[in-house]
Amino acid sequence: MLKRWLVGDPLKTKQARHERLSKTIALAIFSSNAISSVAYGTEEILLVLVLAGTAAMAWSIPVSLAILFLVLVLTISYRQIIYEYPEGGGAYVVAKTNLGDQPALVAAAALMIDYVLTVAVSVAAGVAAITSAVPSLFVHREALGLVAILFIMVMNLRGVRESGKFFAVPTYFAIAALGLLVIVGTLKSFSTSPVALPSTVTGKALEDLTLFLILRSFAVGCSAVTGMEVISNGVKAFRHPESKNAATTIIWMSLILGSLFMGISWMAYHHGIVPKADETVVSQLARQTFGSGTIYYAVQIGTMMLLILAANSAFAGFPQLASILARDGFMPHQMATFGDRLVFSNGIIILGFFACLLLVIFKGDTHALIPLYAIGVFVSFTLSQSGMVKRWLVKKGPHWRKKLIVNGIGAVTTGIATIIIASTKFLQGAWIVFLLVAILIFMFQGIRSHYKAVAEQIALDRRGSRPPLPRRNIVIIPISGLNRAVVRAVDFARSRPGEIRAVYVDLDPEESAKVKIQWAQWGGGINLIALPSPYRSVLGSLLEYIEEILDKEPDIWVTVVIPEILPARWWQNILHNQRAFMLKAALLFKERVILIDVPFHLTR
Amino acid sequence: MLKRWLVGDPLKTKQARHERLSKTIALAIFSSNAISSVAYGTEEILLVLVLAGTAAMAWSIPVSLAILFLVLVLTISYRQIIYEYPEGGGAYVVAKTNLGDQPALVAAAALMIDYVLTVAVSVAAGVAAITSAVPSLFVHREALGLVAILFIMVMNLRGVRESGKFFAVPTYFAIAALGLLVIVGTLKSFSTSPVALPSTVTGKALEDLTLFLILRSFAVGCSAVTGMEVISNGVKAFRHPESKNAATTIIWMSLILGSLFMGISWMAYHHGIVPKADETVVSQLARQTFGSGTIYYAVQIGTMMLLILAANSAFAGFPQLASILARDGFMPHQMATFGDRLVFSNGIIILGFFACLLLVIFKGDTHALIPLYAIGVFVSFTLSQSGMVKRWLVKKGPHWRKKLIVNGIGAVTTGIATIIIASTKFLQGAWIVFLLVAILIFMFQGIRSHYKAVAEQIALDRRGSRPPLPRRNIVIIPISGLNRAVVRAVDFARSRPGEIRAVYVDLDPEESAKVKIQWAQWGGGINLIALPSPYRSVLGSLLEYIEEILDKEPDIWVTVVIPEILPARWWQNILHNQRAFMLKAALLFKERVILIDVPFHLTR
Repeated sequence: MLKRWLVGDPLKTKQARHERLSKTIALAIFSSNAISSVAYGTEEILLVLVLAGTAAMAWSIPVSLAILFLVLVLTISYRQIIYEYPEGGGAYVVAKTNLGDQPALVAAAALMIDYVLTVAVSVAAGVAAITSAVPSLFVHREALGLVAILFIMVMNLRGVRESGKFFAVPTYFAIAALGLLVIVGTLKSFSTSPVALPSTVTGKALEDLTLFLILRSFAVGCSAVTGMEVISNGVKAFRHPESKNAATTIIWMSLILGSLFMGISWMAYHHGIVPKADETVVSQLARQTFGSGTIYYAVQIGTMMLLILAANSAFAGFPQLASILARDGFMPHQMATFGDRLVFSNGIIILGFFACLLLVIFKGDTHALIPLYAIGVFVSFTLSQSGMVKRWLVKKGPHWRKKLIVNGIGAVTTGIATIIIASTKFLQGAWIVFLLVAILIFMFQGIRSHYKAVAEQIALDRRGSRPPLPRRNIVIIPISGLNRAVVRAVDFARSRPGEIRAVYVDLDPEESAKVKIQWAQWGGGINLIALPSPYRSVLGSLLEYIEEILDKEPDIWVTVVIPEILPARWWQNILHNQRAFMLKAALLFKERVILIDVPFHLTR
Repeated sequence: MLKRWLVGDPLKTKQARHERLSKTIALAIFSSNAISSVAYGTEEILLVLVLAGTAAMAWSIPVSLAILFLVLVLTISYRQIIYEYPEGGGAYVVAKTNLGDQPALVAAAALMIDYVLTVAVSVAAGVAAITSAVPSLFVHREALGLVAILFIMVMNLRGVRESGKFFAVPTYFAIAALGLLVIVGTLKSFSTSPVALPSTVTGKALEDLTLFLILRSFAVGCSAVTGMEVISNGVKAFRHPESKNAATTIIWMSLILGSLFMGISWMAYHHGIVPKADETVVSQLARQTFGSGTIYYAVQIGTMMLLILAANSAFAGFPQLASILARDGFMPHQMATFGDRLVFSNGIIILGFFACLLLVIFKGDTHALIPLYAIGVFVSFTLSQSGMVKRWLVKKGPHWRKKLIVNGIGAVTTGIATIIIASTKFLQGAWIVFLLVAILIFMFQGIRSHYKAVAEQIALDRRGSRPPLPRRNIVIIPISGLNRAVVRAVDFARSRPGEIRAVYVDLDPEESAKVKIQWAQWGGGINLIALPSPYRSVLGSLLEYIEEILDKEPDIWVTVVIPEILPARWWQNILHNQRAFMLKAALLFKERVILIDVPFHLTR
């Protein structure tokens, strides 16, 4: 009942087609990840540059322009992937079809980690937007983050279209609020002169302004373009014509992302904003532009909602990737099955779990998570683009030279960015990602080789020869006395013809005599065998008896029918069936023994 | 294998009689609890009195004499119980047979708590004896205590006689060492003059010397007589004539206990010993008497071993009590069964667990545990003695008046002591014991009423009319494709004649066609039914089908045979049988559905 209320009624298969998304809703679902990065992208750049003093912060403009160039390159390259892979062209699929299994698994592992990080970083940043506006909530940021993740999880278990409707309004509200901030703020900035921060007062240089520092600021700034690949994974979710709609949507997404990001970077530079521990850069800008009134709160709430929805976009992408991997045998089969609501429930739950774990480990702090972030996405960007380069070289087709150049530029650009990110952030956390990628690949391959071994073991003989199996079946009912539960088991056993034996372990002659008399009345004509028990061990005597039968008759199944009392409340189980449990545990691994519980349901 | 090596081979029933104890070994097993109390009894008295300044410590002599009087009264009273209850006369049995269920359950609950406390207090004090001698171990006392408890547990799981042999030597060694200390120390004390402590230097009075303080010192000193009841619980473990041997043993025990306790109290008074946090009173006395040489270490090691063995005596008593309660239906039935080694394994394990828990909660500190201690024992003392008083009044018999007076004095004395202990220690922890007693009684009665309800529900009809049960049995094999595991399940189902149906959920027409062709070859002539699945839910369609059968035919068992893959390694289970698990969970509570797993054992 609770499940139904939380996730809604199951949907018929025929409804699946109608779960497709319009461009407006797809933009809300798939682009919130990329667009929301503007909430922390500029701030992370400034946080690195400020180490060289406030004067160095002017470098944020060229660094932001470099990232803007990345957005442009990625947009054009991914449009080619979207057209080439209408079924969904995630990095895993592109790498697998063009480069082979190994690169594909690297891409898959990198992407999986990044989905989890997207959830954790976005939720942490979303909570930061709120605590900037309401500082008293700062101490609760971890708990707020966990609540947010669980909320998104439940929403996603309800199914993708409903989530879309539910999330479209806040996404557009957030884009409007941030757009207003950028437009009003930029216009105002032309009427005011830039603030030159006295470098001696607020900014004390901790490091020299080296090339390495600038590259580091670029590396953390790259977190602003994460999420751009989400649309290419989800082409199938668009309405017909899927590829064209997706390609249009990615252009809109990039335009919004690019203008908001540059606008914020420009305003931060112009107003001489210095990052603070307890207030985000966007919050500072909004206060300067609108004061601490209604519009300020609208910007903060919008930012928060957008970031929460960014986490949501990972919930659309991760289960899809997991199910593709499961279909190829690299993940457990159950990841491939549809849940009630035509969504990949297992993947959603796993993603939510790990994101919560990460949030707790890093105490809900965005800046602590950022060093891990982006590296995974850029590894998969590079593999996607390289895969496409290989594809054009092999497949050729119309305009292949032009397409090769586009994806070639994409591959080189993202490759350089990957090297910069990996080398400047390695010690601050990127090594963890590399380690996890290795572990995940090891896991993928272990799962695949296990399924392969199983398939070989359970494969039917091609020539049609049936595996030799026992043909006779002796039913044994172990009893320790007579009651309705036992009679029920006896009647179940008698419901099919064949040999049945009741066995009884003789511990006490007086008790045995009583059981024999009762059996004559209730045993339904079944033979009762009394087993001796020199060691007082009921279990030992039973096992010995069963093993004897198995040894003597290799062509036999031994079916053990166990009368079991099923209490009305779960905790009452501790008061029952200890012996049945021990017997079952002892018999579980015997090849020709089959166990049957015949439960007797108690009502109180 | 590990179990066998740890607990030894199983014993035959006939060996049970030989597991009886000689007086020498019984004294070691049953009296270590009482005798070992001398290690902390005097110290606890002094710890209370010193609050009123060192001068007040002279009161330790009259308080000790009062406790000696208790020992005398208890010895005489318990001898009468031993003769009257040769089958074992624990407080529970005496209260039950003479006073009724409610007082008996109070006694049982109080005793159970005290058994756990005996283990925890004795082990903590034993560790204190060692850390007095080797101060560097002081920080490890918690871990040392846990190791000691686990060691005793394993010894007890090996069986009672072997434990006896194993423990007799150290017990007598400890009695000899402590005896030597008391004899040499007392003799020496006559040749030296008493030490009068300058009350201004070492002892600053924190409290006035009130009657309440003296009663409090008496209350904590009562911990010295705990364990005197153990022999009366275990009369059955003695050799023939059981009662006579047990009665002789209790006299020896009391003599040893009384003389050691008074000797230590006298010496502590004479030498003006003040209790210290990091060295026990016995250790201080031994150092003064023998210096820090070999004999000193012998006394410390002996004390430690004696205390560890005291914990062991609870391991003999607790499982016995639990099994008596289990036989009366107040504890889970499995507590009443013999383990392999003719001991009550379940009780031993539970006692060990709770003692470890207590030790961890109270950080291995004897003084922190003492306020909880003794109250339980004195409640049960009082109930035993009152029960005996009632018995003589009802039963009469030879010399009943004399016997009435003896137990009457016992009842009054222990009753007064109980009131003193409860009133002076209530706020320091005795309230926890009262609360636990109430909870345990609630539990006992809950268990009994559950078993009673079950017995009524499963009782066979007296007039011999068989409960109406289904007579036909349809076997259903749900399949999702064909492989050796499925063929195995099919062949198992075919091993008994009757109606069999294989069912298949139709998700994909192409796949279905393939399954049908394979089934023609491998299905062994069994009918294959394809179920439609509008909701894409394999589980839902199967459940619907089974429910339909159940509804249509009220006179039928539905046996669901589930082919299940049993992996070679446990963690591989996550990769298999998710669907089978869901199906079983959904069918578990249906009255006429019986589930059968036919496992297919993988080898790699």
